[in-house]
Amino acid sequence: MNALPEYLIDEALKQSSAKNLRTASIREVVGIVHYLQAHSTLTFLRMDMGVPGLPTPEIGLAAEIKALQAGKSSLYANIDGLPELKSELARFAARFLDITIPARNCLVTAGAMMGSMIVCLLVARREKRRQGVLFIDPGFAIQKRQAQVAGIPQISFPIFSFRGEKLYPELKKQCMLHHVSVLIYSNPNNPTWICLTEKELESIGRVATELDIVAVEDLAYFGMDFRYDYSKPGVPPFQPTVAKYTAQYILLISSSKAFSYAGQRVGAMLVSNNLWNREFPHLLTYGDNALLGNALVQDGIYLLSAGTSHTAQFGLHAMLKASNDGTFNFLHHVHTYAERAKFMKFLFLKYGFRLVYDHDDKADLADGFYFTLTYPGMKTETLMKNLLRCGISCTSLQIMGSPENSGVRISVSMVSIGQYSEMEERLLTFQSLLAL
Amino acid sequence: MNALPEYLIDEALKQSSAKNLRTASIREVVGIVHYLQAHSTLTFLRMDMGVPGLPTPEIGLAAEIKALQAGKSSLYANIDGLPELKSELARFAARFLDITIPARNCLVTAGAMMGSMIVCLLVARREKRRQGVLFIDPGFAIQKRQAQVAGIPQISFPIFSFRGEKLYPELKKQCMLHHVSVLIYSNPNNPTWICLTEKELESIGRVATELDIVAVEDLAYFGMDFRYDYSKPGVPPFQPTVAKYTAQYILLISSSKAFSYAGQRVGAMLVSNNLWNREFPHLLTYGDNALLGNALVQDGIYLLSAGTSHTAQFGLHAMLKASNDGTFNFLHHVHTYAERAKFMKFLFLKYGFRLVYDHDDKADLADGFYFTLTYPGMKTETLMKNLLRCGISCTSLQIMGSPENSGVRISVSMVSIGQYSEMEERLLTFQSLLAL
Repeated sequence: MNALPEYLIDEALKQSSAKNLRTASIREVVGIVHYLQAHSTLTFLRMDMGVPGLPTPEIGLAAEIKALQAGKSSLYANIDGLPELKSELARFAARFLDITIPARNCLVTAGAMMGSMIVCLLVARREKRRQGVLFIDPGFAIQKRQAQVAGIPQISFPIFSFRGEKLYPELKKQCMLHHVSVLIYSNPNNPTWICLTEKELESIGRVATELDIVAVEDLAYFGMDFRYDYSKPGVPPFQPTVAKYTAQYILLISSSKAFSYAGQRVGAMLVSNNLWNREFPHLLTYGDNALLGNALVQDGIYLLSAGTSHTAQFGLHAMLKASNDGTFNFLHHVHTYAERAKFMKFLFLKYGFRLVYDHDDKADLADGFYFTLTYPGMKTETLMKNLLRCGISCTSLQIMGSPENSGVRISVSMVSIGQYSEMEERLLTFQSLLAL
Repeated sequence: MNALPEYLIDEALKQSSAKNLRTASIREVVGIVHYLQAHSTLTFLRMDMGVPGLPTPEIGLAAEIKALQAGKSSLYANIDGLPELKSELARFAARFLDITIPARNCLVTAGAMMGSMIVCLLVARREKRRQGVLFIDPGFAIQKRQAQVAGIPQISFPIFSFRGEKLYPELKKQCMLHHVSVLIYSNPNNPTWICLTEKELESIGRVATELDIVAVEDLAYFGMDFRYDYSKPGVPPFQPTVAKYTAQYILLISSSKAFSYAGQRVGAMLVSNNLWNREFPHLLTYGDNALLGNALVQDGIYLLSAGTSHTAQFGLHAMLKASNDGTFNFLHHVHTYAERAKFMKFLFLKYGFRLVYDHDDKADLADGFYFTLTYPGMKTETLMKNLLRCGISCTSLQIMGSPENSGVRISVSMVSIGQYSEMEERLLTFQSLLAL
C-alpha cells in the first residue's frame, strides 16, 4: 500500500474542530477519518472509538422489535425506567456482582454517560462546602468535560504511581487536600485495561466511607477482565466492585459493550440505598428535592432527557433476564475482543511498538477491549500522524489524563482476525515511512 | 360512581415526593394516580400528562424495525444525528416553516427536553456579563427547573398582560433590566393553548436582534393550531415562527406529539446559521469550543448522552421524509386532539367549570392539546383533590408560572370520544361532592 501524503492529514485537521491530533477528542478523530476516507481510496483500520464491533444479541433485538409492534414507541416510559428492567438490573447486581440493591435504586439512563453527567450536576454539588471531583487517571476523558460543563473543580490522581498498598494513604490525602466530594474511575480501566484488585477496591471504599465521599464506579466493560470467568450467574468469581467495601457507591452500567447495544443509548446507574435515603438541603439550590434518590430522578434524568428509548429498555431487559437466568452468556458473546487484542498486540510489538501500560499491579495485563502503545523516540502527534498516513486511526493517551506524551490508545473492537495480513501490510508501510 | 375517600388522596400524597397537589410536578401527579389506581378499583380519566394518545404512524415503526434488523442498534449514531435525518429536518424547516437552514445546523437530541437543557448549560452562559433566562409565562415548568440545575438566573414574563402591541416595549424593557441572555417560549403555548400572532413573533424577533438575545422557540405542538391548515408542504399558510424575524433563533422540534413518538426520545434543535458561526470565548469556561455550533454538539449533546437512539432516528427520518414529500399528512393524523378538546370543554362548561384562558389576543382560543380550567370559588388544591376523588387527574397551572391560584391544565390526549358518558358521570359525582 501507499501511505497517504502528509498534506492530506494537515487538510483533514484544518477542517476539524480539533487543534491538533494529540488533543483531538475521539469524535474529532472519527471526523478526521471520515474526511480522509472521503478524499482517498483507503478504508481505515479503525482503532479509535470503543465501538462494539459485534451485532446486538438476537434476544435483545427480538424484544425491542416486539415492543415496537406492541405500541410502546408512542408512550413515555417512566422517568426512572421500565419497572421490569429495574428489577432485572437489581437481579443482575445480585447475580454478577454479589450485592443487594433495591430495584427502585436502579435508574435507567440515556447511556452510562448520562449517569456521570448527573453525578457532576447533582451528587458532586450535594454540599456547598466541597464539590471537587477526583478522577483516577488515566480515564474516560469525557467525564472530565462533564465536570467542566457542570462548573465543578476536578483533580487527577495518577493510579500507576500508587497501586497496591500505596493507594489508601495517598488517595485519602488527596481527597482531604482537595475537598473531594466524588471520586470516579473505570474498572476495567479505559484506556489502559488495568483492573483494580480487591485490595485496591477496598482502599477506595474505605476512603469513601471515612471521608463521606461518593465512589462512582464506571463498569462500562463489565466482566471483561478475561483472566477470570465472571460469566456464571450466582457463582464466584464475581466482577469485583467497590460496592462490597462501602455503602457510599454509585455504579454505572453500560449496555454498549457488554450487550453490543451502543446505538440505543440505554444504561443504568445503581445508587446504594444508604446514599438514596440521605437528605442534602444544598440540593434545593439546583432542584426541588433534598432526598438524593428523588433528586437523581426528578432533577436529573427528567431534566436531561425525560428518560431514554422505551423500546430499547425492553431489549436490554430481555438480555439481562436471559443472563440472570443463565440461558444466555453475555461474556461468551464478547470474548472475541480478547482474541483480537492478542493478535493486534503481537503484530504491533513485532514491528517495534511497545505497550505503555504493560503490567497490572503484580500480574500481566489482561487482553481486552483496549491497550496502549508507544513507538520508541516518537511523540504522540507524530505517531498518530504516521499511523493515519497508513490508514490506522487511534486516540491520544493525553486526552485521557495519562502523563505519557508519547502514547496512544488502541481499541480492538473494529478490527477482525481476518484483517491480520492487511494490518501487517500497513505496519510495513509505517516502517517504510521511518526510513525516509 | 362513588367518589374515592379523602383520606386515600392524602395517603397517596404522603408517599409521593410532592408536598401538595398545587405544586406537584406532572410526573408526581402521575405517581399519585398510580397509587390511587393500585388502592382502588377506579381507572382514571387521565388529563395530566401530555402523552400522545395515538399510535406511532406505521411508516415510522416500519423504518425503525428495519433499522434494527439492519444492525444499527449496535453502532453509535453520529453525536449530532443521522446525516439523512439532519437533511430531512432542514427540508422540514423549508417546507413547513418556510425558512432556510443548513442540515449541519439541525441537531438531533434525546427529546426536545435535551435541547432546552443544552440551551441553559451553554447558550445562556455564552457571555459572562449576562446569563439570565426569560420565560414567557405560563410555560413548560420543566424548562425552569433546567435553568435552576444549570445555576442561571431566571425571570418570568406574563404574556397575558402584554399581548399584541404591548409586547415589544415591555419585553424589551424586561430583557434590558434583567440582563437577559436567552428567552424561551412555546408556541402553541403549553398550558394555555394560546398561539402567538405574526405581529407578536415579530416583536420577539426584534427584541432578540436589537439586544443580541437568543430566542428559543419550543415547537412541541408543531402545526397544531387547527384554526389554520399548516399541513401542506411548501404551501402557505406555514407554522408561524420567530425565525422569520430574527437571525438569533434556536427552534426545538419534538417528535412526541406531532409524530406520536414520545417513548423514543428523539427531538431536534435547529440553530440559526448566524448563531452557529459565532465565537464566544466565555464558552471555554464550560467546554472545549468557543464556536457556538461546535459547542452545542461537542460540549452539549456529547456530554449529556452521546446522542439518542440510533434506530429511532431512522423512524423519525421516514416520517419526516413522507411529510416533506407530501405522501403522509402528519397533522391529519393528530387532528383528533381538536375534536377531543371540543367535547371535553363542552362537558366541563356544562357542569359549571370555566376556562382560565379563554381568548387568544382578539380571537377565540383554538381547540388543541391542552386547555385550562377553574371552578368558581375553588382554589387549585381543592379543585385537584375533588377531581382526583372522581377519578380525573390534571395538573396545577401554578407549576407552569401562571399567576392564577385557582387553575388547572387539562390535557386531552388520553381521553377518547367514546368516554363521553363516563366523563359526564364523573362530573356528576364532582357536583355531588360539593353538595355535601
